This record gives sequence, C-alpha cells and structure tokens, in this order.
Amino acid sequence: MQDFIYQIPTRIVFGKGAVSRIGELAGEFGKKALFLYGKSSIKRTGVYDNVTGSLKKSKIAFVEHGGVKSNPVLSHAEKGIGIAKRENVDFILAVGGGSVIDEAKAIGAGVRTGGPIWDFYTRKRSVEAALPVVSVLTIPATSSEMNCTSVMTNEATGDKVGFSSNKLYPAVSVLDPEITYTIPPEYTVYSGVDIISHLIEGYFTHKDPYVPIQEGFAEVLARAVIECTERCLDNPSDYQARATMMWAGSLAWSGLYVAGIGPIQVPNHLLEHPLSALYDVAHGAGLSIVIPAWMRYTKRENAPKFARFANAVFGIPSGESAEEIQAAAESGIEALKSWYLKIKSPVSFEDAGIPASDIDRITEQAVRLAAIWGLDNYTKDIIKAIYGMCTMR
Amino acid sequence: MQDFIYQIPTRIVFGKGAVSRIGELAGEFGKKALFLYGKSSIKRTGVYDNVTGSLKKSKIAFVEHGGVKSNPVLSHAEKGIGIAKRENVDFILAVGGGSVIDEAKAIGAGVRTGGPIWDFYTRKRSVEAALPVVSVLTIPATSSEMNCTSVMTNEATGDKVGFSSNKLYPAVSVLDPEITYTIPPEYTVYSGVDIISHLIEGYFTHKDPYVPIQEGFAEVLARAVIECTERCLDNPSDYQARATMMWAGSLAWSGLYVAGIGPIQVPNHLLEHPLSALYDVAHGAGLSIVIPAWMRYTKRENAPKFARFANAVFGIPSGESAEEIQAAAESGIEALKSWYLKIKSPVSFEDAGIPASDIDRITEQAVRLAAIWGLDNYTKDIIKAIYGMCTMR
Repeated sequence: MQDFIYQIPTRIVFGKGAVSRIGELAGEFGKKALFLYGKSSIKRTGVYDNVTGSLKKSKIAFVEHGGVKSNPVLSHAEKGIGIAKRENVDFILAVGGGSVIDEAKAIGAGVRTGGPIWDFYTRKRSVEAALPVVSVLTIPATSSEMNCTSVMTNEATGDKVGFSSNKLYPAVSVLDPEITYTIPPEYTVYSGVDIISHLIEGYFTHKDPYVPIQEGFAEVLARAVIECTERCLDNPSDYQARATMMWAGSLAWSGLYVAGIGPIQVPNHLLEHPLSALYDVAHGAGLSIVIPAWMRYTKRENAPKFARFANAVFGIPSGESAEEIQAAAESGIEALKSWYLKIKSPVSFEDAGIPASDIDRITEQAVRLAAIWGLDNYTKDIIKAIYGMCTMR
Repeated sequence: MQDFIYQIPTRIVFGKGAVSRIGELAGEFGKKALFLYGKSSIKRTGVYDNVTGSLKKSKIAFVEHGGVKSNPVLSHAEKGIGIAKRENVDFILAVGGGSVIDEAKAIGAGVRTGGPIWDFYTRKRSVEAALPVVSVLTIPATSSEMNCTSVMTNEATGDKVGFSSNKLYPAVSVLDPEITYTIPPEYTVYSGVDIISHLIEGYFTHKDPYVPIQEGFAEVLARAVIECTERCLDNPSDYQARATMMWAGSLAWSGLYVAGIGPIQVPNHLLEHPLSALYDVAHGAGLSIVIPAWMRYTKRENAPKFARFANAVFGIPSGESAEEIQAAAESGIEALKSWYLKIKSPVSFEDAGIPASDIDRITEQAVRLAAIWGLDNYTKDIIKAIYGMCTMR
C-alpha cells in the first residue's frame, strides 16, 4: 500500500424524502442561498417545487442562477460569482448532477478567495477559502457530491480542465433515490457507464502490487452498478436499485477506493473527451466506445489484473498459464463490451455516428489534452492505434 | 437500502514514517497537548521517543498521562480531565490502541462540555463540545481512530458502556504500519479476530434485503484480514500485510459498511463481554469462542446469508436447495472456526481455561448486559444455549 491522506468531511444525508429536509439541513450554513441548477428538468420533475418549498418553510432566502451547462462553462460561473457577491449569499445550493455541483464549487471558491477562478484550474493560485456548498444530487455519476474536484470548460480557449482542493468538499449532500426515478433510460445507462469508468481508471492504472481492500471495493461497486443499471432499466422506480446506484456513484470517485493505491491515470477520460467535445455524444456513450479498445490495447502488459477483473466482476474463471490468463483477460473485456451492447450504449464510432475518417482530427485533440493532463505515455501513435480499434465493433 | 447519514470528518494520515510528522500535524490544533498513553510498551518500541521528538521539534508542549487500562476506566479519565483543565491544554494526543483513543475522546468531551462524563455514557446528557483528539494508532482493532464512539468502564458499578457523538471523531489519526511490526503474535491474532467480529455483527444482524455494496465491502475486508493476519504471523515485518490490516481495522467499524443497512445488533460483543470481564481472556480470544457458537445458533433463520458468507469469504460453493444452502452455511462456520484454530485463537471455554461449570454465572452477566444494551431478543435461555455450545470444541 502507498502512503495516503484520506478525509471526506461531507455529510451525506441519504434516503426517501431527504429532499424535503433541504431547508432544515441548509439552515446551518446561513439564511440566503445562491440556488444553482441546470436545465428546466428539475421543474418538470417536481424537485424544484420540493426544494423551494422546503427553503421557504425554513425561511431561507434564495437567488436563482439556472442554466448550468452539462459541461459547465467559465462565463456562467463568473456570472454566478457576481450574483453571489451582489446578493451577499451565505452558501451555494446546487441542485443537479455533477456539472451543477462542479460549478457551485467554483463559485463558492471565487466568492471567498477572490481573483479569476480560471487560475485555480491552471494551478496558478490555490483556493484559500470557499462558501459552503450544499447539494441535492439528481443523477448519480461523477461523485462531485462527495469529492473536492471541479471540472470547468473555458469557452475562450476550449480547454476543459479539472482541479481539486480540500476546501471544495460539499458541506452537505442530499441523496434521495426517489428523485432519480425520472432519469430517462439512456441517461440511466450513461450514469452506470460513467460510474464504472471511474472504477476502471484507478483499478487498472495503479502500480501497487497488493491492495486487496481497494481492488475489492472497486469490484464490489462495479458488480453492484452492472446489476442495478439493468434493474433500473427494467423498472425505473426500483428503489433498491436506484438507491444502490446512487450510493455507488458517490463512493466510486470519492477517493475511497483509490486511497493507498498510489498514482493513477485517467486514460479513458482522455480518450473520451474529444468524442463528446467534437460530436453530439454523451460522456457515458463516449466512454463505452473507448474503454473496450483501451482495455484491449493495454491488457497484454497487465493480463493478471484483467483476468482478476473478469473473474470478480463477470465470474469468468481462469487457469494459471500465461495463455489461460490472457484468454480470461480477453473474455472479461468481451463481457464488458457485451454488457454495453445489452444496455444499448455504443461500443464503436459507427454506433455513435462518428465518421472513421475523422480519426486524425480526434487524435490531434487527444494528443493536445494528453500534454495538458501530463499523460506522457499516451503518444500520438498509441492514441491513434486505440482509436483505430474504436472504429468498428 | 435504509435511510442513513454518513460523515467521517477524521483526517487519516497513512504511511511509512507518518509518526514522525505528528508534531507538524498536531500543530494545527494548538501548542499544548495532554499526551495520553497506556502501558510502557510505546517506550520499549521507540514510538514514545519518536512522538516526543516530533512534538519538541514543532515546539508543542505536552503533559503526560500514561497508564490507560486496556478497558479504560472512569477514574483515570476523570484524572485526565483534571490535568487537562489545570494545564490548559489545547488538544488531546492519544498514542495507543482503541482504549487510549476512547479515553481521549472522553477527556476531550469532559473538558469542553463540563459536568460528570459518565452522564454521556448513560445518555443523561449529550456532548456539546470537545477538545480535538489527535491519535497515533499502535494496534489495529476497534476503529476508534476513525469513528465517534467511546467505551468506558465505571469501576464503581462494574458497568462497561459505550456511546457515540459526532463531536468525538478524532481530528487527525496517524496510521503508520511500521510501528505495528512489534505487535506480538497473540495480539496480532486478536486484532484480526476483533476486526472480523465488527464485520460479522452488522453483516449478519441487519434486515435489509438488498445491500450489495455494504455486504460486499464487509466481505472484502474479512478476506483481506484473514489473509493478512496469516501473513503478519509468518513475517511480522510484512509491510503490505501490516498496512492492509491497519486500513481494514480503521474501515471495519468506521460506519462505512453499515451505512444504509439499517439497525444492527452486536450479540457477539454481548456474549464475549462476560468472558473478558470475569476471566483473564483477551477480547479477541473471547470473540473467537463465542462467534462460531452464535453462528450455529442463528444460522437456521438466516441460512442464505451464511451461505453467501461461506462463498464470499471462504470460496465454499452452494447449491440452490434448502439443504444445500444449510450445508454451505455450516461449512462456512466450520471454516471460520478452523481458521481461528489455525491462528491459535481459542474456540471453546476449555481452550481458554474457563470452567464449563461457570456457565450460569457467565449467563447471568450476559443477561444483565442484554438489558442494559437493549438486546431484548437475547433471553436467558438463548444466551445459556449459546454458551452451552461454547463449552467444547
């Protein structure tokens, strides 16, 4: 095990009807909120009424700042900082998915630390203080409700960058599985794919020889998400499955399973990014395209880990010989790909309507990103080779 | 999944040489500490010199209060409160196992909340505030370094009672696996047994029909502890195994795997307590005696869970019929008992030198405790029947 520091101070309030307690829970952080949300879907699903009703009951004033994009953009966050300062709010209330919570963190840091917030993303300055963030999660996916990371896109440069600061943990996050009943099937799928991708990144890229707790936790979460994604598709109001998805989504990228495994990389997020940036492809859909290809590309140098994954997640047995281990590794990748197909997530450029002829353009984007993210082992040739495997099923 | 609130604000600083950073880490909480420890073993192992050296380097003054008992007693804690007040310390530094950290929590609460601390244990009053506790863990077992519970014995009445308060989480806990190399084999064994007992209590007593994350986490931790206890016995300086034991010990009873499983009971702790209270038996040794008997007594009403445990922890397969499930359940219990024997932890009164003729006296103690702990389903007859199964291998 590698040295680590672990601290997740966020209070998770989980359960049926938890949204109605938001006023009471938020009251601890002040009397006036910047109420941040994305599209109008929270009005359609009743979450908006539920939240505002609870705030009013607890006599908490709020200023709304809707329209957060699904990849949050700097200009919208800066506008939020302006409103928060002018209105002198005490805390940020984020109601939405990872993007809304990511932007809330940026606004909270911008108000209390001052200066241009893009400096945090470019590592020019650190967050010294931040307004508290209280979140109501509407879709499980990024763990932003339980971690200290914020990802933002600078529209001026086109750069999408993330950063972490221990000042950015939400103070309270409300997880009410019932409000996820209305997530449409395709986003239920992408949510499952995204959560599993966070497990895959650390599981396969760390170099520690013995971390059975951490790898075991990742396997447990992956199995639960696979099972529950299917259950949610069969019955969108399956409380057990929605609740399990929600808790798995929060834990997956919270820092729990990566504590002690040492440095990791996020190659699948690197490879996915150009797809959702250049085409009308959801992040989850892009991930299910690149992950099997990336796995095939890297499995040779890491076959025992892939065989372990195949066994733990899909029950695929393996023999002891190098050939048998390679075969089990391959079967595990095939099983994951088949699962993506089963839940109707794309597994090739073709599935997603991305022209194979665009491969050079896509590769260029990824190469640029690899430089920014410091993924030096992903050269142009390697990236193009992996994308080559994405062109067809 | 059942509704829950989850928040563990403790900062875990884990790794090689972490003890030497204690001065720097503690500096955040003030300039003067009450330095609490148990027996002189920390002087023999060099931990004492390491800690005091680091404190001096960081110019942190400290008053010593050694001699914490392995079941901490009220009078010693009260004495500590007196010293802490008189010396006007800023925080409590606990260097030891669960008992030292439990007493540190009590002292911290006593100093800042005031009044008799036994009131917290009897639920007469709540902790309103507490001095920060900084801990250096010397033996993994209770998770006190990462939870908000304190267990204390009132020598006047003989009562040993625990309570929890969210003011009691240690602010920082230092986990340095290298300082556990010197734990003697028998305490390495009892540490492993104790950690697994915490997993067993919640796993087998909750009533939720579908909590794959929580049950999966408990299984992962149990497997890791079984493997690493043996590795530590083979080679006391096996860093990987000591580190895994230490992290498993902190997570097991931290509140992680029980979040969402609903109410649980601690029958094995109930049954063990009279053994370590009445005889010269370590807590871990008492647990390995009562657990197989308790399992045999309860497996009939909960066979599928026992079969699942048998499979997940010991790789024992099961068929689908009721008979096959019962058989798998029984094999799992037998496997756990065999493991206790393998690592030389007692599995019967006889093994521990407890006279079978004392069964009524032991039962009386447990009955009294069941009333205090509110374990109404453990009647005198049931308790005596389970102890009856403990008399022989």
